[in-house]
Amino acid sequence: MLYFNCDYMEGAHPKILERLAETNLDHTLGYGEDPYCLSAKEKIRLACGCPEAEIFFLIGGTQTNATVIKGLLRPYEGVIAAETGHINVHEAGAVEATGHKVLALPHRDGKLDAGEVRSWLEAFYRDGSCTHMVQPGMVYISHPTEFGTLYTKSELEGLKSVCADYGLKLFLDGARLGYGLAAKGTDVTLEVLARCCDVFYIGGTKVGALFGEAVVFPKKGTAPGFFTLVKQQGALLAKGRLLGIQFDTLFTDGLYFKISAHAIEMAERLKGILDRAGCSFWLDSPTNQQFVVLGKEQQKALEGKVSYEPWEELGDGKLAVRFATSWATRREDLDRLEEILETI
Amino acid sequence: MLYFNCDYMEGAHPKILERLAETNLDHTLGYGEDPYCLSAKEKIRLACGCPEAEIFFLIGGTQTNATVIKGLLRPYEGVIAAETGHINVHEAGAVEATGHKVLALPHRDGKLDAGEVRSWLEAFYRDGSCTHMVQPGMVYISHPTEFGTLYTKSELEGLKSVCADYGLKLFLDGARLGYGLAAKGTDVTLEVLARCCDVFYIGGTKVGALFGEAVVFPKKGTAPGFFTLVKQQGALLAKGRLLGIQFDTLFTDGLYFKISAHAIEMAERLKGILDRAGCSFWLDSPTNQQFVVLGKEQQKALEGKVSYEPWEELGDGKLAVRFATSWATRREDLDRLEEILETI
Amino acid sequence: MLYFNCDYMEGAHPKILERLAETNLDHTLGYGEDPYCLSAKEKIRLACGCPEAEIFFLIGGTQTNATVIKGLLRPYEGVIAAETGHINVHEAGAVEATGHKVLALPHRDGKLDAGEVRSWLEAFYRDGSCTHMVQPGMVYISHPTEFGTLYTKSELEGLKSVCADYGLKLFLDGARLGYGLAAKGTDVTLEVLARCCDVFYIGGTKVGALFGEAVVFPKKGTAPGFFTLVKQQGALLAKGRLLGIQFDTLFTDGLYFKISAHAIEMAERLKGILDRAGCSFWLDSPTNQQFVVLGKEQQKALEGKVSYEPWEELGDGKLAVRFATSWATRREDLDRLEEILETI
Amino acid sequence: MLYFNCDYMEGAHPKILERLAETNLDHTLGYGEDPYCLSAKEKIRLACGCPEAEIFFLIGGTQTNATVIKGLLRPYEGVIAAETGHINVHEAGAVEATGHKVLALPHRDGKLDAGEVRSWLEAFYRDGSCTHMVQPGMVYISHPTEFGTLYTKSELEGLKSVCADYGLKLFLDGARLGYGLAAKGTDVTLEVLARCCDVFYIGGTKVGALFGEAVVFPKKGTAPGFFTLVKQQGALLAKGRLLGIQFDTLFTDGLYFKISAHAIEMAERLKGILDRAGCSFWLDSPTNQQFVVLGKEQQKALEGKVSYEPWEELGDGKLAVRFATSWATRREDLDRLEEILETI
Repeated sequence: MLYFNCDYMEGAHPKILERLAETNLDHTLGYGEDPYCLSAKEKIRLACGCPEAEIFFLIGGTQTNATVIKGLLRPYEGVIAAETGHINVHEAGAVEATGHKVLALPHRDGKLDAGEVRSWLEAFYRDGSCTHMVQPGMVYISHPTEFGTLYTKSELEGLKSVCADYGLKLFLDGARLGYGLAAKGTDVTLEVLARCCDVFYIGGTKVGALFGEAVVFPKKGTAPGFFTLVKQQGALLAKGRLLGIQFDTLFTDGLYFKISAHAIEMAERLKGILDRAGCSFWLDSPTNQQFVVLGKEQQKALEGKVSYEPWEELGDGKLAVRFATSWATRREDLDRLEEILETI
Repeated sequence: MLYFNCDYMEGAHPKILERLAETNLDHTLGYGEDPYCLSAKEKIRLACGCPEAEIFFLIGGTQTNATVIKGLLRPYEGVIAAETGHINVHEAGAVEATGHKVLALPHRDGKLDAGEVRSWLEAFYRDGSCTHMVQPGMVYISHPTEFGTLYTKSELEGLKSVCADYGLKLFLDGARLGYGLAAKGTDVTLEVLARCCDVFYIGGTKVGALFGEAVVFPKKGTAPGFFTLVKQQGALLAKGRLLGIQFDTLFTDGLYFKISAHAIEMAERLKGILDRAGCSFWLDSPTNQQFVVLGKEQQKALEGKVSYEPWEELGDGKLAVRFATSWATRREDLDRLEEILETI
Repeated sequence: MLYFNCDYMEGAHPKILERLAETNLDHTLGYGEDPYCLSAKEKIRLACGCPEAEIFFLIGGTQTNATVIKGLLRPYEGVIAAETGHINVHEAGAVEATGHKVLALPHRDGKLDAGEVRSWLEAFYRDGSCTHMVQPGMVYISHPTEFGTLYTKSELEGLKSVCADYGLKLFLDGARLGYGLAAKGTDVTLEVLARCCDVFYIGGTKVGALFGEAVVFPKKGTAPGFFTLVKQQGALLAKGRLLGIQFDTLFTDGLYFKISAHAIEMAERLKGILDRAGCSFWLDSPTNQQFVVLGKEQQKALEGKVSYEPWEELGDGKLAVRFATSWATRREDLDRLEEILETI
Repeated sequence: MLYFNCDYMEGAHPKILERLAETNLDHTLGYGEDPYCLSAKEKIRLACGCPEAEIFFLIGGTQTNATVIKGLLRPYEGVIAAETGHINVHEAGAVEATGHKVLALPHRDGKLDAGEVRSWLEAFYRDGSCTHMVQPGMVYISHPTEFGTLYTKSELEGLKSVCADYGLKLFLDGARLGYGLAAKGTDVTLEVLARCCDVFYIGGTKVGALFGEAVVFPKKGTAPGFFTLVKQQGALLAKGRLLGIQFDTLFTDGLYFKISAHAIEMAERLKGILDRAGCSFWLDSPTNQQFVVLGKEQQKALEGKVSYEPWEELGDGKLAVRFATSWATRREDLDRLEEILETI
């Protein structure tokens, strides 16, 4: 069976396992006050061009989103997100569990449009009863989005500008950030994110780590008390060095970028294969998630041989599905996929 | 100036003030353990045909909605509501502040359609990742809705049936319930509500009381610990008898129904006046809230003389507005409104 | 039967009922944007010597405490209170329901001692694991306390100074504030409170109103978004003017102070009566709540004739009990109490 | 430097790292639906003698405590714990963040006494205002406690009986459970826990795993919706198999019990060494945490050579400290400690 379901089906990049084994019996203080965490943070600051950045390592995406949002919002505030945003759909109400509403706006292929956010805010504050409603306090975006799409630098600057005008924080969920940074033609870099966002995170779970997300606050003092909040949210790892070792490895010799680039190369090949097989693309994604429409015959041909993620039934037996590549995708798996598709 | 903005601009029905004055220096226990509350509850049980019903008096609508929803949901559950539902828009995130997501569905003139709720539930449980999402635990409806519209008995039974099939609670927000029960042609009575709903409330604030909402759980044991929860939510009035006296008065000699019927009679006259004045109706409401479209000239004619609630700008200078009648609306005010409109 | 159980057994001062009746059919905007609220706020600002103060009217004590605490704390912070503090014991976990821990310290007759608070804070920050614990963010005191005792001006200044040194807010719960301000020998005034506290409230429910608490933030901008938070907490009264009218009446011609002084005069007489009857005082209170120890014979003599609040069983049939006077206590009731006690 | 600070200073037992490496490139479904998790759960069910038990793998202790407590309490309920309980002190208010109060009772060397819990409950329900207070809904204990002490089987049965009488759940925090089960003379086994508790967890983080806690609900249906709640609390690991692999390894060939027994053997030796060195024991612990009093000279002798956890300053330069052994403690480290102490 070939697996293209998602980008978190394997363990970690072998170098990470090696480092974990090498350091296994070291004695270190817990909770992130170890030399591996310090080193990893320093490397991330360098990569972001942000010597002052405050960095925290958390374990997974949902917990990171809830903790960051809880940390930056006042109790009467909510967070604006695309209706398709992960926090609005697939996090079991983790944000609401911290007491905050998700203010869902229409999406454009998973993205928020700065102009539409501005219009929404203008209408909100024009409404005479706006003080009876949840006050917008933050804009949440994901990059890549849940549909694999990307913001341009200019789109991010547009959102930053709306946020500045309305006193909102801008938070970017980078669960798959590596694949976004490695995409062809993108002009978004870590430095750009550090300039545009109040906070963002660099995803490890889906990009080569066993688990782990590195939260970056480019400006000092953005989230006072954040360490205690992480503890309160159950997001503080006792053996914090496990996170430090992983991110230190990923940010040594550009490993994070190299393995991301590999996934993108695999995704480009995958696109070609699917295209040649006559699949139509459900939407156009430049990253490691590819959404295509499979007809009945194609579904049948892949059955029992290739595993993918069903996304949406389109009627007439057609199915929108997701194929994902990752740092772990092998060339030979793509070759095999092509052979299978050629048999149709 | 004539005021038709809303139905909570005056104090209370004069009989309520009289009773408050008469009983002012009585000594009673606090927190609702007084004879007035007991008597009021008994009268409400009778009116609902529900001798076993558990009844609680709370102060206002938002607090009632949040307390009831918190009391009946498990922490991983959310509440389905029309996207226009009061809890989704105008309660400052009170439901989310208790940790629960509002699952907003499209509305039909402010109402939820049982068939659409069922389809949504079917799709929800078909989704392989549904356990990663907020679990639906309740359906919230308002009657009359925020647009003044009403459910029929059969529509309520439809919702009850969907709820039963999916293990959901049905909660009816009756902030304006009197005006719904008194509407022409409705087949919904308190007994019908008691049969269809797990919990509903009979609004006092907008129907003759200074403040107060009577929460009715038709079946005993629906919400264990509810008294303590009311206290925790800050919704327990120290001098609870103030609520008892008001509801006892409203449910003596059918006062609640008489004053509601008056408001409906006034609303019917208002409709006639607006219709004769050439206003088009934005939607068709059988209750005390009337939504009409005012052109520029009409707006000008009313300026400084008649106060109403702007609702939505429709372009070309047209404005959808709300006129509300209430127990306190006077015939002479309607006569005067007609005169003003006739001058155009 | 004579009732001395508590200070919220009757309705409101007759002047308040009169004003409510007079204004009953006035049309005003809801939610506190009416002329009565504006006038009441202005009078309270004057009384506090605080022309800039921001004032909000809420309905009851528990909801006020939870809303103020939620409004001023960050999510990782807790509130220091005496272990006997109302928020720690009798509010059904309302503070915890907003996500914050009550950090309970030992009490001295219901009071917090500034020196002990300082020592606790010193020890807290010396502890190497203090960032794993709830961070202190506020000190909550009640004045009068739950035992009727009072802080001196110098004690309040001591607490203010500790708070300033550690960056904590100081919040004073004045549910019975009138009775504290009217006590013999106190040097605490509204002006003193406005100088010492970040926020305090002037209790109406127990001091002449039907209900209502006036929250005073002496400094502008202390609690941004507080109006929306009040709404979210279900503490915003639709017919807000009911609160405005009550506080406007209480702060006209010093009514609040006059009726409080009456209650204190009654309490002083009560003390004399109980003393002459040979009751020992459980603790020494200068305000309207008196705590005495009743022997078996005394309890028997009062049975069926005088109602009081049992407080704590002391063994040997002795019972600590609370007698409370209020604005509504009548001289003749005290005379009658004296007669009954004299029969023993 | 020798390290005895705590039991989570190293990585994982080497067998766990081996298994992680072996399985690293396996493709599995996420979120715990993989064969490793299934296998680990089956082994734990067997070890507990509980074929029906529902088992969930979470990442760390604080998140486990908060999730379990949130999952089993109704919103108006709180959790009884020793005042020294981890949830009351060192979890940054994680329980309160879910809306529940910790009801702290006095401890006996870190333990709750069933008789005292019963007395407290009797007094609670005798109090006329008990419905205004947080309702007790659960008893939380830790085993071993924060002081290394243990309950006997009979003490656990006593707590179970109190809980049954008052309708409370019994929850046992087993962050260091292995060390408790391996202690000399204990009559508490996994089977005993499964009979006495509504829920308990088997700690991995401190007993040989990189991280991970196995929550056991002995009775089916105890916590409906728990999977979704785990997700909501940010406690669901994407690559859930990492937990499955670790617990499967720990419960294969009794590894969990063997490495726990090693830690206890080391602790017994440590006790001997400290005793011979003239240290007095601050309290008597049969498990891997040992609390002794160090005088000034002893502290000086260890400085720079032996690292331990300062616990409490006792005056006169004396310091209560904690020495912890673990699965990773080496015999030669104890020999070296003995040599250092002999030099005094």
